[in-house]
Amino acid sequence: MDNPFLVDVTRGNLVESRHRGSVTVIDADGGTVLSLGDVERHVFPRSAVKAIQALPLVESGIAERYGLTDEEIALACSSHSGEPEHVAVATAMLAKAGRDAACLECGVHWPMGEAATRRLAARGEQPSALHNNCSGKHAGFVCLACGLDENPSGYVRAEHPVQQAVRASLEDVTGASHTEEEAAIDGCSIPTYAIPLPALAFGFAKFGTGTGLPPATQAAAKRIRRAVAQHPFLVAGSDRFDTRLMETLRERVFVKSGAEGVYCATLPELGYGIALKVDDGGPRAASAVMAALVLHFLPMSDLERAAVEALAQPVLRNWNGIEVGRFTVSLEVLG
Amino acid sequence: MDNPFLVDVTRGNLVESRHRGSVTVIDADGGTVLSLGDVERHVFPRSAVKAIQALPLVESGIAERYGLTDEEIALACSSHSGEPEHVAVATAMLAKAGRDAACLECGVHWPMGEAATRRLAARGEQPSALHNNCSGKHAGFVCLACGLDENPSGYVRAEHPVQQAVRASLEDVTGASHTEEEAAIDGCSIPTYAIPLPALAFGFAKFGTGTGLPPATQAAAKRIRRAVAQHPFLVAGSDRFDTRLMETLRERVFVKSGAEGVYCATLPELGYGIALKVDDGGPRAASAVMAALVLHFLPMSDLERAAVEALAQPVLRNWNGIEVGRFTVSLEVLG
Repeated sequence: MDNPFLVDVTRGNLVESRHRGSVTVIDADGGTVLSLGDVERHVFPRSAVKAIQALPLVESGIAERYGLTDEEIALACSSHSGEPEHVAVATAMLAKAGRDAACLECGVHWPMGEAATRRLAARGEQPSALHNNCSGKHAGFVCLACGLDENPSGYVRAEHPVQQAVRASLEDVTGASHTEEEAAIDGCSIPTYAIPLPALAFGFAKFGTGTGLPPATQAAAKRIRRAVAQHPFLVAGSDRFDTRLMETLRERVFVKSGAEGVYCATLPELGYGIALKVDDGGPRAASAVMAALVLHFLPMSDLERAAVEALAQPVLRNWNGIEVGRFTVSLEVLG
Repeated sequence: MDNPFLVDVTRGNLVESRHRGSVTVIDADGGTVLSLGDVERHVFPRSAVKAIQALPLVESGIAERYGLTDEEIALACSSHSGEPEHVAVATAMLAKAGRDAACLECGVHWPMGEAATRRLAARGEQPSALHNNCSGKHAGFVCLACGLDENPSGYVRAEHPVQQAVRASLEDVTGASHTEEEAAIDGCSIPTYAIPLPALAFGFAKFGTGTGLPPATQAAAKRIRRAVAQHPFLVAGSDRFDTRLMETLRERVFVKSGAEGVYCATLPELGYGIALKVDDGGPRAASAVMAALVLHFLPMSDLERAAVEALAQPVLRNWNGIEVGRFTVSLEVLG
């Protein structure tokens, strides 16, 4: 089946580009609130499930034992821009487990944040694994390994106790089998497993409400949501979508981007979980659709509405600041 | 009508993302060689037509009068990475018209090339309009204005003699009307006009062969193609698709990317013009399809074939260099 158009990108009076995709919104009882497109196709959730991947660290009591702060918990769920604050928090997490950046197995890249890259270059420095956008998640994995008295070496491999715990957590929360046949390797070298969007959305409904989760998982999910809501900068960075949305709405929404146009969210007060995938992998469409969904479902003040509308219908400006086009999210998205 | 899938992006054993689009290949007599998808939809060619936009500069004799070199002609057709060589050539072009960067109306951005951005930042410098990926085209526009004894100020506006000449050239070569109703503003602030892909492809067939063009236009097109073939680095930059393809095949292919997934090319020895548009605007799909088309149509040596295959079916590697996926261009693309 052909997925519907989710976003039109216009230039002048014409539609220049269009993004298709699938969207599902599930409530905490597993009921379907919205279903658009082929939602049964299995998708790799990529970084959109980092908060669920962080559950074992908190649920096991290891985060507590190492005295991880809310900042550090937030960074464990992040795809950060590699700004100095992100690097400092990742460094502190590793130190609490008696480790350092040498333990990180996520690989090295220049900061995702362009300003952070320029700042680093201006200082004559090179990036380290701490600048990798996944370094917070990986620092959490190292803490989990050490807390479990396991050698952290090889913690990215599917058979390591860390990835076994992470996979069990994903299966428990989403209710979907994570199979070898549908496994692949993520950008940061850990396994990623393809599952259907409704399972992802249901998992986030449970993550947001605690419904159907054991008490320890409920408490861990709550701690993670609060930590991120208090430090939305640490989960992404300057001028990033997740950061801007959660700075505006705080604990009323938890939202997390993944690569290739995946986005997950929960709106705890409504009991909703949201999962969407843009067919072509375009992140610009995924974030606009997510903002439009949040805007549609969540009551908010005029001030909040204005901030979220700017994310749902971004204006395209050229290098001289001239408005050249717009994003328009399909009305179908809004049920 | 739904456009066909052009490229599958796989991760592990699964298709993670898919790109749709339309493709047309036209010969120098206007005959259709290949037509895929809705080719009648009008698309903004964006930067893919820079070589045609450079015709008035050469055809008028102004390039000759100012003594523009092949390097400078190549840069006039470029979407460059803002590397030092690009900046130097743009500066030299402006100097030949007795002007400097203050005349450029393209706006300022950090170099498109990440290494160039880091180098600039490392020197404590800020970017200027010379680093804008369109600065070569704009330096050409400034030369054209000065050569026409027109004030270059406002040369980006549709009513300026420079844009009038550029528009006339586009209409002459493509045979398509460029109307106000289908005009929009490009990233560098000049007008861009939406036209159907077959007109674009036909225009490039004529650009590549001279068929149906007045002698002065033929000569100008030949000079431009030769200049770019001799300096493919200047039309894009380090590790860029256009540069790599033309470094491999030189004058046997002229290829030029445009924003939002547009690509144009000509294969002069076959008399073909090619134009394609990826629906979602994804450049990664546009370049893979273009490479696959060149590979399909053009006879080449094993060495050349290996180089172009690497562009058509890029392997996706993560930050640790592990192969995580691949691009697969649809067989339908190959007729």
